[in-house]
Amino acid sequence: MDYEPQGAKIVTPNKNVGNMPADHARNGFYGQDILSVSQFDRQKLEYIFKVAHEMRVLVERFGSADLLHGKILANLFYEPSTRTSSSFMAAMLRLGGQVIPINNVQYSSVTKGESLPDTIRTLESYSDVIVLRHPEVGAAATAAHYAANPIINAGDGVGEHPTQALLDLFTVVESLGRIDKLRVAMVGDLKYGRTVHSLTKLLVNYEVEFVFVSPEILAMPEDVLNVVREHGHSFSVTDDVNPVIGEVDVLYVTRVQKERFTDLAQYDRVRDQYVVDEALMERAKRDMIVMHPLPRINEISYGVDDDPRAAYFKQMRNGMYIRMALLAAVLGKA
Amino acid sequence: MDYEPQGAKIVTPNKNVGNMPADHARNGFYGQDILSVSQFDRQKLEYIFKVAHEMRVLVERFGSADLLHGKILANLFYEPSTRTSSSFMAAMLRLGGQVIPINNVQYSSVTKGESLPDTIRTLESYSDVIVLRHPEVGAAATAAHYAANPIINAGDGVGEHPTQALLDLFTVVESLGRIDKLRVAMVGDLKYGRTVHSLTKLLVNYEVEFVFVSPEILAMPEDVLNVVREHGHSFSVTDDVNPVIGEVDVLYVTRVQKERFTDLAQYDRVRDQYVVDEALMERAKRDMIVMHPLPRINEISYGVDDDPRAAYFKQMRNGMYIRMALLAAVLGKA
Amino acid sequence: MDYEPQGAKIVTPNKNVGNMPADHARNGFYGQDILSVSQFDRQKLEYIFKVAHEMRVLVERFGSADLLHGKILANLFYEPSTRTSSSFMAAMLRLGGQVIPINNVQYSSVTKGESLPDTIRTLESYSDVIVLRHPEVGAAATAAHYAANPIINAGDGVGEHPTQALLDLFTVVESLGRIDKLRVAMVGDLKYGRTVHSLTKLLVNYEVEFVFVSPEILAMPEDVLNVVREHGHSFSVTDDVNPVIGEVDVLYVTRVQKERFTDLAQYDRVRDQYVVDEALMERAKRDMIVMHPLPRINEISYGVDDDPRAAYFKQMRNGMYIRMALLAAVLGKA
Repeated sequence: MDYEPQGAKIVTPNKNVGNMPADHARNGFYGQDILSVSQFDRQKLEYIFKVAHEMRVLVERFGSADLLHGKILANLFYEPSTRTSSSFMAAMLRLGGQVIPINNVQYSSVTKGESLPDTIRTLESYSDVIVLRHPEVGAAATAAHYAANPIINAGDGVGEHPTQALLDLFTVVESLGRIDKLRVAMVGDLKYGRTVHSLTKLLVNYEVEFVFVSPEILAMPEDVLNVVREHGHSFSVTDDVNPVIGEVDVLYVTRVQKERFTDLAQYDRVRDQYVVDEALMERAKRDMIVMHPLPRINEISYGVDDDPRAAYFKQMRNGMYIRMALLAAVLGKA
Repeated sequence: MDYEPQGAKIVTPNKNVGNMPADHARNGFYGQDILSVSQFDRQKLEYIFKVAHEMRVLVERFGSADLLHGKILANLFYEPSTRTSSSFMAAMLRLGGQVIPINNVQYSSVTKGESLPDTIRTLESYSDVIVLRHPEVGAAATAAHYAANPIINAGDGVGEHPTQALLDLFTVVESLGRIDKLRVAMVGDLKYGRTVHSLTKLLVNYEVEFVFVSPEILAMPEDVLNVVREHGHSFSVTDDVNPVIGEVDVLYVTRVQKERFTDLAQYDRVRDQYVVDEALMERAKRDMIVMHPLPRINEISYGVDDDPRAAYFKQMRNGMYIRMALLAAVLGKA
Repeated sequence: MDYEPQGAKIVTPNKNVGNMPADHARNGFYGQDILSVSQFDRQKLEYIFKVAHEMRVLVERFGSADLLHGKILANLFYEPSTRTSSSFMAAMLRLGGQVIPINNVQYSSVTKGESLPDTIRTLESYSDVIVLRHPEVGAAATAAHYAANPIINAGDGVGEHPTQALLDLFTVVESLGRIDKLRVAMVGDLKYGRTVHSLTKLLVNYEVEFVFVSPEILAMPEDVLNVVREHGHSFSVTDDVNPVIGEVDVLYVTRVQKERFTDLAQYDRVRDQYVVDEALMERAKRDMIVMHPLPRINEISYGVDDDPRAAYFKQMRNGMYIRMALLAAVLGKA
């Protein structure tokens, strides 16, 4: 990014958090940034899932808590994302904290607008933690470099969106009771879908069998497949969901977008091959789940919504629990 | 709406609210949606007005309460309405609750945006009650069909805006001490004015005499007049406010908008006939009130603002009390 | 403003605040509007700085307080200003109050939009105090004329932005321990810079020596210089920062904007003469401070940010403390 001062380096997050309580030091989240799924090993995932589950129990029983009373979240969105910003807002409010929502920030050239570091330094004068959504890859890491308070990455362009991957995996474990020994199929646009890349990188921490289902031109990229290989996992690749539907425990559906195709005839051939409908669900296992990052257009039929295996609205709610867990953890209250 | 799944039916609101306390069950608001003025009979109106009056006393004495501490309102506005969204927000905050404001939602075609049911299901993952403003008639009912939590209609196009009608009627009763035996004149654009239609439908629950004052092309529609007739009320129709000003207890003024006229000469003839000014007020009763849904442009002169009979700013404050009462009622805390 | 009713007068703020506690009556802030730096004499400045310092201690020790629990601020911004609106929001939230943010207000002609007085009267139905940012000079005074509750001016066009000047002066006293006997240089665009005008008008309350450094066409206006003269202060004027850098205690930097120049060759000659960089700072006193109202583009090099004399990010934080002090004071809780 061109506003990066000469000589500045993007450092791995390791903030000086002063008198860090021993418990949180062990868990390693207090005062830390949440920038990437690569920060999470199996132990850390299990810790966050444990806290998120506690948050679920708390909300279901009491609605809210006062854990973060007096704390302020700056919710800084350089591009609109109603779902994600509302989810973080709800998470902070349910923990008794407060939120400064900052939307419609002028994202503009250096000559017109303020640099990201200056904006971050200003906002951390007012707040205790910053959630950042930004269209540029690496923006969250830049923000974290300049901020003394924790930064949580809520999506930086085609880069990372770690809380989405965490809520996806949390939904698997809350729905099926385990992650090991599952067969997970990812369906649709596996090339450009940020969510399936990040989820795959988290799943390699577990004993999972992958099935990648997509048209050839939207196949899972080699660098993600290499991560799977490096962790010694088996995977299969196919362009047809029908042969695999009866054997998977998780069906993670993404949208095949028209804009990805230069040959529209090709798009018309494949567009309906990856639609999950009631007929397809009849051949699925009884205890599997269907997931989707939302918004969906027509890639899952409305008729599937009331199927108990439909987990995509649960994902939304789990997103709030995961974000509650992360906010509490980085502020030392988990 | 074309995103309506086949076979789905808009049902009358009657949600399963689990362990409903006996008191609230009797009052019939706990867990319910507020979609239309047609839900309110005289008994329900009196209950809501009683609670709204208590809210007024509470705010005047203490400023706020903690009745809805830990509850979250999703304030979902598909079109801007500063007045209404601020009023609901203030109502929730004064009751100790929190608000997720969602403005500037991309309201777009099915191919670009998410369906209303999906948005509602997502937001109710985060919140305890949803206030919805939407440009399409029936949107609130659709939302209520899919939501497990209460939906409050804050205006759906040319359809309903029930909380406006409730605050109007509450202002009458708070100002004049009664509704029965009043003579109520509605003035201006009675054809397109959603507020006068809804207010009329509430007033027929009382012994009221109606006077409809408008240019002929902006007369009260037959279907609304039929509601008046069915309830056995008398009404008179005129195009001149002068003969009636001395006899009315309530003068409800609406704006005559230029855009409604194809013949601008006609507009120029009538535009100033319905302006309420100090000269007109000199001939009005001493204990009557002048109302207006706001915003006003010039249909009430600024000189009238300090007249004790001017009730339009009181309407704003009463709007907050009515919305406090409704929020508390549907969340079981009235 | 053309929506001003005939005969209305902009009055000096002197609101009827009912049962005003004796302490706050003495301090003179309870129930009052904050419209202009001209309201502040040395005694009032010292009171506000004392309270702002207490707010700083409170935030540093406890994060937040419940002083304004149950109070609501309407944050009304007719033009965007992320920094100022976030600062007021943080101030209110850190005091335990709540905020209704109102951005993107349709600022439009009389025929389309609502008048400012009507908007103010509506919003004060919902809130206890209103912060107003408006593009027209005098808007805050108009709002204050119609409002029963306090109005705080957050900038009215090229008019006033009193809380900015207060935070600037508070930063001087917090950083250097005093204001008397300081030599203060203001650098850059002194003609159009609202902040340097207001700061100068506050500084004349103290024994300060002024140095005004700018290109001739961006010189400090005569009316501001006259205020300095009337208070018997000496000042010097120069177009070169180099001879004075070694002698000043405060260097207040503002941006020289290209748009101010009709002759771009002239702009190119002066643009880099007023950039503060590490080389310049080497010749500055050891205990001076560099200030800037932010946002900065390139008028202070990033290399200066880590210099302990750089006070511009502290200004941001001090802005929150000053706004906490003002909100508490006008609501009778300081």
